[in-house]
Amino acid sequence: MERSIIALLYGPDQPGIVAKVAGWIHENGGNVLHADQHLDRQENIFFQRVEWSPLPSHDLRSESDAFSSFAHEELDMKVRIALSEDRPKIALMVSKADHCFHDLILRVRSGEWNAKVVGVLSNHEDLRAASEGYGLDYLHLPVTKETKHEVEKQQIDWLRDKGVELVILARYMQVLSSDFLNHVGCPVMNIHHSFLPSFVGAKPYHQAYQRGVKLIGATAHYVTEDLDEGPIIEQDVARISHRHGPLELIEKGRDLEKLVLSRAVRRHLQNCVLDYGNKTVVFD
Amino acid sequence: MERSIIALLYGPDQPGIVAKVAGWIHENGGNVLHADQHLDRQENIFFQRVEWSPLPSHDLRSESDAFSSFAHEELDMKVRIALSEDRPKIALMVSKADHCFHDLILRVRSGEWNAKVVGVLSNHEDLRAASEGYGLDYLHLPVTKETKHEVEKQQIDWLRDKGVELVILARYMQVLSSDFLNHVGCPVMNIHHSFLPSFVGAKPYHQAYQRGVKLIGATAHYVTEDLDEGPIIEQDVARISHRHGPLELIEKGRDLEKLVLSRAVRRHLQNCVLDYGNKTVVFD
Amino acid sequence: MERSIIALLYGPDQPGIVAKVAGWIHENGGNVLHADQHLDRQENIFFQRVEWSPLPSHDLRSESDAFSSFAHEELDMKVRIALSEDRPKIALMVSKADHCFHDLILRVRSGEWNAKVVGVLSNHEDLRAASEGYGLDYLHLPVTKETKHEVEKQQIDWLRDKGVELVILARYMQVLSSDFLNHVGCPVMNIHHSFLPSFVGAKPYHQAYQRGVKLIGATAHYVTEDLDEGPIIEQDVARISHRHGPLELIEKGRDLEKLVLSRAVRRHLQNCVLDYGNKTVVFD
Amino acid sequence: MERSIIALLYGPDQPGIVAKVAGWIHENGGNVLHADQHLDRQENIFFQRVEWSPLPSHDLRSESDAFSSFAHEELDMKVRIALSEDRPKIALMVSKADHCFHDLILRVRSGEWNAKVVGVLSNHEDLRAASEGYGLDYLHLPVTKETKHEVEKQQIDWLRDKGVELVILARYMQVLSSDFLNHVGCPVMNIHHSFLPSFVGAKPYHQAYQRGVKLIGATAHYVTEDLDEGPIIEQDVARISHRHGPLELIEKGRDLEKLVLSRAVRRHLQNCVLDYGNKTVVFD
Repeated sequence: MERSIIALLYGPDQPGIVAKVAGWIHENGGNVLHADQHLDRQENIFFQRVEWSPLPSHDLRSESDAFSSFAHEELDMKVRIALSEDRPKIALMVSKADHCFHDLILRVRSGEWNAKVVGVLSNHEDLRAASEGYGLDYLHLPVTKETKHEVEKQQIDWLRDKGVELVILARYMQVLSSDFLNHVGCPVMNIHHSFLPSFVGAKPYHQAYQRGVKLIGATAHYVTEDLDEGPIIEQDVARISHRHGPLELIEKGRDLEKLVLSRAVRRHLQNCVLDYGNKTVVFD
Repeated sequence: MERSIIALLYGPDQPGIVAKVAGWIHENGGNVLHADQHLDRQENIFFQRVEWSPLPSHDLRSESDAFSSFAHEELDMKVRIALSEDRPKIALMVSKADHCFHDLILRVRSGEWNAKVVGVLSNHEDLRAASEGYGLDYLHLPVTKETKHEVEKQQIDWLRDKGVELVILARYMQVLSSDFLNHVGCPVMNIHHSFLPSFVGAKPYHQAYQRGVKLIGATAHYVTEDLDEGPIIEQDVARISHRHGPLELIEKGRDLEKLVLSRAVRRHLQNCVLDYGNKTVVFD
Repeated sequence: MERSIIALLYGPDQPGIVAKVAGWIHENGGNVLHADQHLDRQENIFFQRVEWSPLPSHDLRSESDAFSSFAHEELDMKVRIALSEDRPKIALMVSKADHCFHDLILRVRSGEWNAKVVGVLSNHEDLRAASEGYGLDYLHLPVTKETKHEVEKQQIDWLRDKGVELVILARYMQVLSSDFLNHVGCPVMNIHHSFLPSFVGAKPYHQAYQRGVKLIGATAHYVTEDLDEGPIIEQDVARISHRHGPLELIEKGRDLEKLVLSRAVRRHLQNCVLDYGNKTVVFD
Repeated sequence: MERSIIALLYGPDQPGIVAKVAGWIHENGGNVLHADQHLDRQENIFFQRVEWSPLPSHDLRSESDAFSSFAHEELDMKVRIALSEDRPKIALMVSKADHCFHDLILRVRSGEWNAKVVGVLSNHEDLRAASEGYGLDYLHLPVTKETKHEVEKQQIDWLRDKGVELVILARYMQVLSSDFLNHVGCPVMNIHHSFLPSFVGAKPYHQAYQRGVKLIGATAHYVTEDLDEGPIIEQDVARISHRHGPLELIEKGRDLEKLVLSRAVRRHLQNCVLDYGNKTVVFD
């Protein structure tokens, strides 16, 4: 893999940003590999994802620090940096369903993604054997209304100890408190088993069956305090008919959930996703 | 085209319906061309669509009357009959947008569907020239809160005079009263420009943009008293991204609306759709 | 799960087949759960899939034998029978790629399909550890031009010993001889990594890249003597762009291969697929 | 609509192109609205589409001339320029089928595209009345083996007289000679009714039926001397089953052909398509 720096920038639009960013990289001897930008004209916010290979003699970390300073100070942009050598640490939170769990772990193990799964958190024992079979730490903490606050503290300690950089709710059937989200210190991604904003909340396949829709969907989103209201990263649908009862919807939905969640995780790990307001920019 | 009878049946399930229906047709010398059935196990309702060619010496109308009696009396089923020679009369209701309007009329004119458009109703003058260019009667009745009741009576008289058997709301931007629906005497189909139940009501593309969804949709449904709540016949979606503003969604949506509405109309005209409760069975 | 018999019939069309089949079941006290038929009008061949629950007092095996005799003798139809209690034995043939391998095994293990994987055959050692981790027998037989004939004999012995009822080539990178196909004694299914008939033979993703197509595909088919020419069971495509090099096509293609192969296997295991001539009828 | 210049550039990659292009625009007081680039790493060719609004005081034509000189001379790039005020002239070539014909004309008339249809060429009389109903010139020239050479000369004279900038073969059932293509002086786009490279040549839907594929497709491409081998701009597919005979494929295919051709034309008219070798870059 090529040695490269990826910068994600966003901030108020102003003339010449593209020229200044490209100019900075060129002057420092870098070679732009990809660049993509977007202007939200309603909000007048400029977004850019730029990836470049620096001079072989340049240290990735110092060059990206220098770029960050430049972007902050001269362009007034917020910046997020990733290096080609980064290998982000992921934790999974699961309950009983195992389809997304296996799918994500097998993708990481096959080398499809440049990431590392560091452990599995669950409110059930069901996936302990499978997790340990994959050589992964498994922390089982049952959640009740009474213990929830305390459990979330333990979960956060565990996640922080391991240096987790992305938490994926792979069909974790508990709502996370805003306290958890404020303290976890990294993005949290969820897969919801409907085409949001349709069928929020519990049992979306049963709701879909009841309404008689002709397509079912799945939605991957970042988790925010408002249940099922976070910024959407990826969605897809599958065709159904009157022949499919709730159980068939659940079965068909599993494939959709795996695909949609894995696409969202891929884009996140490729540093293609910027969220702002309650929406995302997902660069190609 | 083959000379045939299509029967749509539904009612409480009971043993032997399939055998009895097939037996009746066979005993009367008919040859089954297609047969499809469905059992809603939650409601215990049986549905069947069966198409057969009767003996050349048999009159289509009398054979289908005889079948209807048999199905009512011996199977306790509700029956809807269509003959291969039927050519249902369609009326369009439109406002200003013309994409579904042209699409439907051109399909009928090309012989794609065995139907006849008998006129266009509108609350605006915009599509008069185009309608008359197609040789179609055009009735313009502006609607205000005050005139609505009276206008709907005129619309119903006009539709009944023409013997209309299907009313298609091809982006008609007025809500129909339950009075209208109770008296129109034939099914009314609508195209809603979202993936229902998401984004009911006005300006669904703006709502979709605001929420940041990654797919937009369209839904064709029979119209009932509850706005956007009628039985869904067909839905589809198209992929969008952060690059698409509300105007691009509207443009992309037009193609989706045409496709989804035309598929629903095709299935209806092929006598493949049965609605019950608030859902549909759409046979292949 | 309900206790039921599934019959797949096909043969020359004749009047009254539907009535006679439904009549036989009804007279024997059975209740039709699903029935679907198809008439190939060009070839005048009739196809039917019918599933019924017999009287509780009836033995599944004797009732299905009786039905088979009836269908052979009175309808002149070929018949294939499956019972709800059947749990077909599957063997996988693999080389080095493991995505379809894991996908299929995890589906069986999760109970998604009513089947049993009885072993893995490979021309490489790569998937031994994973297979044995799943508790599966693994037979490694390297194939060279010289040994091919002998190896195929050993493979067939192994498959027959285990009573295998479906062989799935889950990205097995060797061509099977017609000798193998004639003696294996059960259907063999393959996943080809292109939208057939485009890009037959080796390296289809590279061919697709070279041609500049905008969609890549995958095709699941039964294996016949003519490479990549067997009856197609299922196909699907994914959108690509100029941005995707051959490696990205391979990565994107893996998800497609898993989905398409798993859908084909599901339909096969649900006894929904009939192949005739070089085509398939796949009932819903 | 905003006053803007769109430049499409391509040529051998070299360091700093992005910076130099953005720098040139910024120095001339322009504001980049969109910019997208692509590097074909196998061929080492760089592609860019950049759109900017120049200073209000700048003339669009002179600024774009100046940019072209800069790109040629300092970057060694080939350049194609379009102005926001351009309204390209389109001619349609048709035979008997009218679905793409109506679809394209109605899109232009509705203002969906910034273009002008200047006439219709045909080897049949069938679409004369419809064309003239739209107020379009119609040139009917029957083609036989003997007259083909002479007819093509007349067609080219007619197209050149009208200043046509894009020829669209909207189901024109004649092969164009390389002589025609060399002299027509503008791009020629075709819709082929299959998923190329499958089913080249005549009667692709019949070929698809014969092969038993589970999806049918359509392909829009620029026309080159090699029939059905030109650079692909857009493709899509639709699901079919064993129930669909050749006639149903043709009917289903019409919708696909309209959609795929219209998407390709849209991208072409938005100056998003660059063709090189036998492939295209289609910017978003």
